[in-house]
Formats: sequence, C-alpha cells, structure tokens
Amino acid sequence: MRFITLLTDFGERDGYTGIMKGVIYRIAPDVQITDITHQIQPQNIRAGSLAWKRSYAFFPERTVHVAVVDPGVGTRRRPVAARIGAYTFVYPDNGLITPILREAEQNGTAAAFFHLDQPRFWLPQISSVFHGRDIFAPAAAHIANGVALEEMGTRIDDPVLLDFPQPIALENGWRCEVIDIDHFGNLGTNLDQQCLQSMPRINEVRVHIAGKEIQGISHTFGDRPPGELVTMIDSDGNLAIATVNGNASRALGAGIGTTVEVIVGG
Amino acid sequence: MRFITLLTDFGERDGYTGIMKGVIYRIAPDVQITDITHQIQPQNIRAGSLAWKRSYAFFPERTVHVAVVDPGVGTRRRPVAARIGAYTFVYPDNGLITPILREAEQNGTAAAFFHLDQPRFWLPQISSVFHGRDIFAPAAAHIANGVALEEMGTRIDDPVLLDFPQPIALENGWRCEVIDIDHFGNLGTNLDQQCLQSMPRINEVRVHIAGKEIQGISHTFGDRPPGELVTMIDSDGNLAIATVNGNASRALGAGIGTTVEVIVGG
Amino acid sequence: MRFITLLTDFGERDGYTGIMKGVIYRIAPDVQITDITHQIQPQNIRAGSLAWKRSYAFFPERTVHVAVVDPGVGTRRRPVAARIGAYTFVYPDNGLITPILREAEQNGTAAAFFHLDQPRFWLPQISSVFHGRDIFAPAAAHIANGVALEEMGTRIDDPVLLDFPQPIALENGWRCEVIDIDHFGNLGTNLDQQCLQSMPRINEVRVHIAGKEIQGISHTFGDRPPGELVTMIDSDGNLAIATVNGNASRALGAGIGTTVEVIVGG
Repeated sequence: MRFITLLTDFGERDGYTGIMKGVIYRIAPDVQITDITHQIQPQNIRAGSLAWKRSYAFFPERTVHVAVVDPGVGTRRRPVAARIGAYTFVYPDNGLITPILREAEQNGTAAAFFHLDQPRFWLPQISSVFHGRDIFAPAAAHIANGVALEEMGTRIDDPVLLDFPQPIALENGWRCEVIDIDHFGNLGTNLDQQCLQSMPRINEVRVHIAGKEIQGISHTFGDRPPGELVTMIDSDGNLAIATVNGNASRALGAGIGTTVEVIVGG
Repeated sequence: MRFITLLTDFGERDGYTGIMKGVIYRIAPDVQITDITHQIQPQNIRAGSLAWKRSYAFFPERTVHVAVVDPGVGTRRRPVAARIGAYTFVYPDNGLITPILREAEQNGTAAAFFHLDQPRFWLPQISSVFHGRDIFAPAAAHIANGVALEEMGTRIDDPVLLDFPQPIALENGWRCEVIDIDHFGNLGTNLDQQCLQSMPRINEVRVHIAGKEIQGISHTFGDRPPGELVTMIDSDGNLAIATVNGNASRALGAGIGTTVEVIVGG
Repeated sequence: MRFITLLTDFGERDGYTGIMKGVIYRIAPDVQITDITHQIQPQNIRAGSLAWKRSYAFFPERTVHVAVVDPGVGTRRRPVAARIGAYTFVYPDNGLITPILREAEQNGTAAAFFHLDQPRFWLPQISSVFHGRDIFAPAAAHIANGVALEEMGTRIDDPVLLDFPQPIALENGWRCEVIDIDHFGNLGTNLDQQCLQSMPRINEVRVHIAGKEIQGISHTFGDRPPGELVTMIDSDGNLAIATVNGNASRALGAGIGTTVEVIVGG
C-alpha cells in the first residue's frame, strides 16, 4: 500500500479535489489518498506551509505529500518534487516546503529537489489554471508507482524559500508572534518549547498578549476554569494561547501577527 | 478489510483529522477510514453523541468507531473503549456513548467497557492537547489490527453517561423538544415513532412549535407545496419539523431545546 | 479495485455522507469511495449537474458515480441508473444527468437509462426522506459488485432533462451568462472555447460584465497584476472572468445569471 496526501486551498465545494483523486486513481489505482486540508485561505502560501509541516511526519514512510496553494499557476514558476528523508513532496515552487526543509536541516536529514519538467508524466492537455489536476496529481501518482524523481525531472539546488518571522530574544524573555489560528480559536506562536525551556524560572513566566497578562504555562486546558485564558505548549510543540472551552482569537481580538511577549521576573 | 470511522469537533481546516489518519495508517496500513463528521460544534458532547448514534450501525461488523469531542483533554478523564454488539467504540469517557448504549440496552445487546491505560498502544510522546492523535488514533489502529480490548486496558463498569431530555406524556399527547438541527434546517425532536404510533387517532394529530400549528404527519416532503411547514418521521426515526425545500430552523427561529407539543383531539 | 464517487447537497455536518459509505462498504467492502462534493447548494439540481459533469471523466473506467440532490425525495420521482460510455451514473431522475448526456451526445457516446425498481437491491427499510442511504448507496454498491443494470431495473427512454441557458450569437460576438461561481470567486460562463475560437480577430476581443470592459483573453492569472480583472479559459474549457489573486464575484457583485457579452471590433 502506498499513500498520497493532498493539501490545497481549493475548498470542498467545486469538486476540484475529487477530480485530483480521479486523476491519481487512473494512474495508481491502489494508492490510499488522505486529505490533510483543502481549507487553506486562498493563495496563502505561508498558512499552507504550516499545515503541511504539522502533518507530514505522521504518515508511513514513502508517503507522497502533495500541496497546491498556487497563486502563480500558469506562470513560469516551476512544478517541483523534493525528496526529504523518507517522504516525497510535490508542489509549486513557491516556498511551501520552507518549514519542512528547516526542520530537516535541524535534524541533519538529506534533501534533494527536482524540477518536474517531463510532460510525459502529466495529463495530455495542460490548462493554465488547474495544475493540481494536470501536473501535480499525475506526477504524484507516478511517484507513488515507483518512478524515480531522477526520471521525472531535473535536479535543482535553488528551491524558492520563504522568510518566516523569528522570535526575538529580550533581556528577560522572548518577543514572538501569532503565526496560526486553529478551528478552536487557539493562537499558535513561533516560539517553540526549546526556547521556552531555555528560560530560567520557567514557573514564574508571564505572557503578554493584546493588553492581557497570563501567569505561567498550563499543563492543559483542564487546569483552569472554562472561559479563562491560558498558555500552554500546543500539539505542534509551540507556545499557544487558548481560552478554556472557548475561542481565544475572538476573546482577544488577536490574529496572525499579533505580538506575544514571554517575560520572567520583574 | 477492516474499517475505522472518525467523528470529531476538529473542523477540516487545520489538518488535525489528516494527522489522525496518518497515525492510523502507520500502525494498520490496510484499514479503510471513513469520516462521519468533523463539524460537531466545538466541545458539544451531546451533539457528537447524536451524530455517532445516527451512523454507527450502518457500517460492517467489526468496524472501530472513534469519536473525539473532548473538552477534558489532558485532564484525568479516561480514554475508553467499549465493545457493544459487533462494534468497538473508542472515545474520551465523557458520555459520548450514551445514546448508543441506551439503544443497546433496549435491544438486549451486551456492552463491555475498558479503560485504555496501556501506554504501549499510544504514540511514544503524549501531548496534553491532542489525544485524538496521541491516544485514540493509535488505540483504534491496534484494535483494528486485532488486539483484544482485554489486552489494551482494564475492564470498568462505570462509564460516564449523559442525561438526555425525555418526552413528557400529556393527557392528550406529548411534549418533546428539538434535539438536533441538520444541514437542511430540519428540526429533529426526541419523540420517536414508537411514542407517536402509540397515540390514538394519529391522523388527527396537531403539532405546535414556536407559535405555529401544523396539521397531521406528512409521509414526505413532496406531500405539500414548497415553503410549507410539515412534520414527518425523519431518517433517525424521530418526529421532525421541516420546511418543504426550505429551512425550518430559520423560518421558525427554532433551535436546540425549542418545545414541541404533539396533541390529538380537542 | 472498483471506484464509487459521491456528490450531494448534504453538507458534511450531520454524518449523512458517512452513513452512505457505511451502507456501501457492507455490500461492497473493497470499493474505493471518493467524495466529489457535498456542498452543492441545497436542492440546486443545476449546480449539482455542473459539478458532476466537471468531474466524472477523470475517474477510472467502470467507476460508479452517485449524485443525490433530491428535492423530490419520497415522491414518485424515479431512482435511475444510466450507463454512458465507460461509466455508470446513479441518481434521482430530476435532470442531474443533463450536461453529461449532452456531452455524450456530442461525442457520439451511447447512453442507456434504467428505472431502479427492484427493492431487493435496496436497504430492507426505506425512509421517505433519505434515499441516498436507503436506495442510491446500496444500488451503487451492487453495481460496483458487477450486478448488471438490466437486472437492477427496467429500461426507460424518457429520463428527465433540464433546459440550460445557451449562449446567443450576436452580430459581432456572443451574449452568454455566468453559470457557476467557484470557491475562489471565479465566474464561469456557458460560452465554451469552441464558440470563442470561432470568432474572427480573437485577439481584439472585449468582454463586458457588470458595467466593466475587459480587453482580450488572458492565457493565465499570472499575465496581469494582482487585483486586475482578467478573462481566460477555465479548467472546464469555458470562458471565465477572474480577479488575479482575488475574488471576481465579490469585486463585480456578479452571480449566477449575470450577463456577459464577448464582442469583436467596433
């Protein structure tokens, strides 16, 4: 059994993601296809890259992960495939891979990139607006069937990468920012638990966001009463701000880019 | 072929449900996974329990049904598995199983509950916020692989159960209430067809809701013109109020808990 | 491996589509089921028919395509199956098949229709409100299992068909209309590329919509700057109006039925 995952900004209304699956099954009838999400905000490459990074490593080895958030569809941006560790990633060359590649670099995992420039692995007719159907789906299916990336395209060493905001070290803590808001309204930041654990007197930490101060890092939602603001380590391993059984984004009027400060001591 | 179903309040935006599937496939690569719904209102255990009860019995025997609506994630609430008839149910011990268990009791179907307390069937690292990924998905996969519940946990006899509102018998009928509103705006009540059929002169029934009176129980939507309010037996087997080709919830301003009276005679 | 696809207006909230899958798996445990969409506007047969036509041909031969947009559920409208080329279509006889049949007629593809009137291929109990579960899902599963349509029902030659608006030839171009708005806000028209390509001096074309004039047909989104209105051939092969990296439907206040004129010369 080989696995393919799909992540797009196509929504689920028009049948576009079903069409991609049909294209895949015609080429690789035995694959198992999993939807990661199709609700990335249209053209939001950064949001797509975070959801992709969150999910890929939980799948079996040799899974082919496809992401299509593609404001440049029909232009000269390259369709690419990346082999990183045990997985293959297929996507438009616009930086979607950035957080996954950064993690691989930290772990010392090898990465190789290929420009998918061999039309014999695409559909016969290529539209200028739906490369998910015409290029990425058939390419992923051929890869799942075992075609080597070396055969599917040309090695490149200059994949497009994004700049992500980094937390800033303060004298007595960190200044970070909200980079993700999930379905529950939980606010994920770009401060990971390694940074947090490097702080002295972690038990005395205070978190400032949107004019509020929150004392300490909770172990879980259940530690405090419903409606109360809490901070915790989220399932991505980052500092997050949540409202117990509520929606912190709405409660705080906070969104992507909202500043968060994590301070210890006076 | 073994089957697993998933029901959550995670939404489909963040990739959380895709992650659960990846975890399952790593352990049980040949299972077939079906989404029941991921759009249960956040933390609404009661709504989740009704959708779970609506769907489970249509699946093949031995299907493993997983539900994660889990406001107590990270607290001491137990992860549990229930063997009820031909199915296994995996969920946080907060009452999600109640309507399924009540139905089993009515049918004389045996039920056994287990506290999933064996970490060797979980992911190696357990977050305090995403037990769907860390505990429930891997547990379900091991069960689908054939591990006995007796091996996965400790038998318990005190599963948490919910109180559901019951219809009240009146002198000349029933007082019930809306317990579910579906995608079409149809209003499902807690009055089942057995109660209805026990009424004398069922053809003369009048239904009162939100200041309106509806005459008789229709056989189907097509019995009356578009826009008209009708009552009928819904696909769950309960009394429902609908607007023909319209949205009864919006038309009546009715919601969960709205009182419905079903009266016969003067 | 046999494939079944599902297209409905059920939404994804209530578990109805999961229930259809359970019913299918009980009868045909080895099929692979793909969701096309469940977000067709409730009871909008025309919208369902367009999404169905968009998607079916990308699936492997012998795929069984199921569509349930069914305002007449429970009335005497017939459940039907159509064999058109390499595919089978299962649906309520209300015209959902129209665009697919028209395309087949243009291609000279044979079509045969059957009234699914054999209750032994349905669930034992038939509700008056959920034939997707009770009739269409089990029928599709039996067809996927290889039961001949001749065995499942009675041949008919009068399937219900819809009238669709057709583009009107003008002295110097075409008057067409918006028939589809996708997730991105792109406006699809009923003018196909054959009509467009029949126009003289296609490079000098001007498109009028909602008081705006757009010069020429772009090759792709990337041809013009973000925010600009463009026209192009969409992935269905029709003239479409889009906003580069934006939402043309919102920008123009245009919707289904909005008139579009395509003019050449003075």
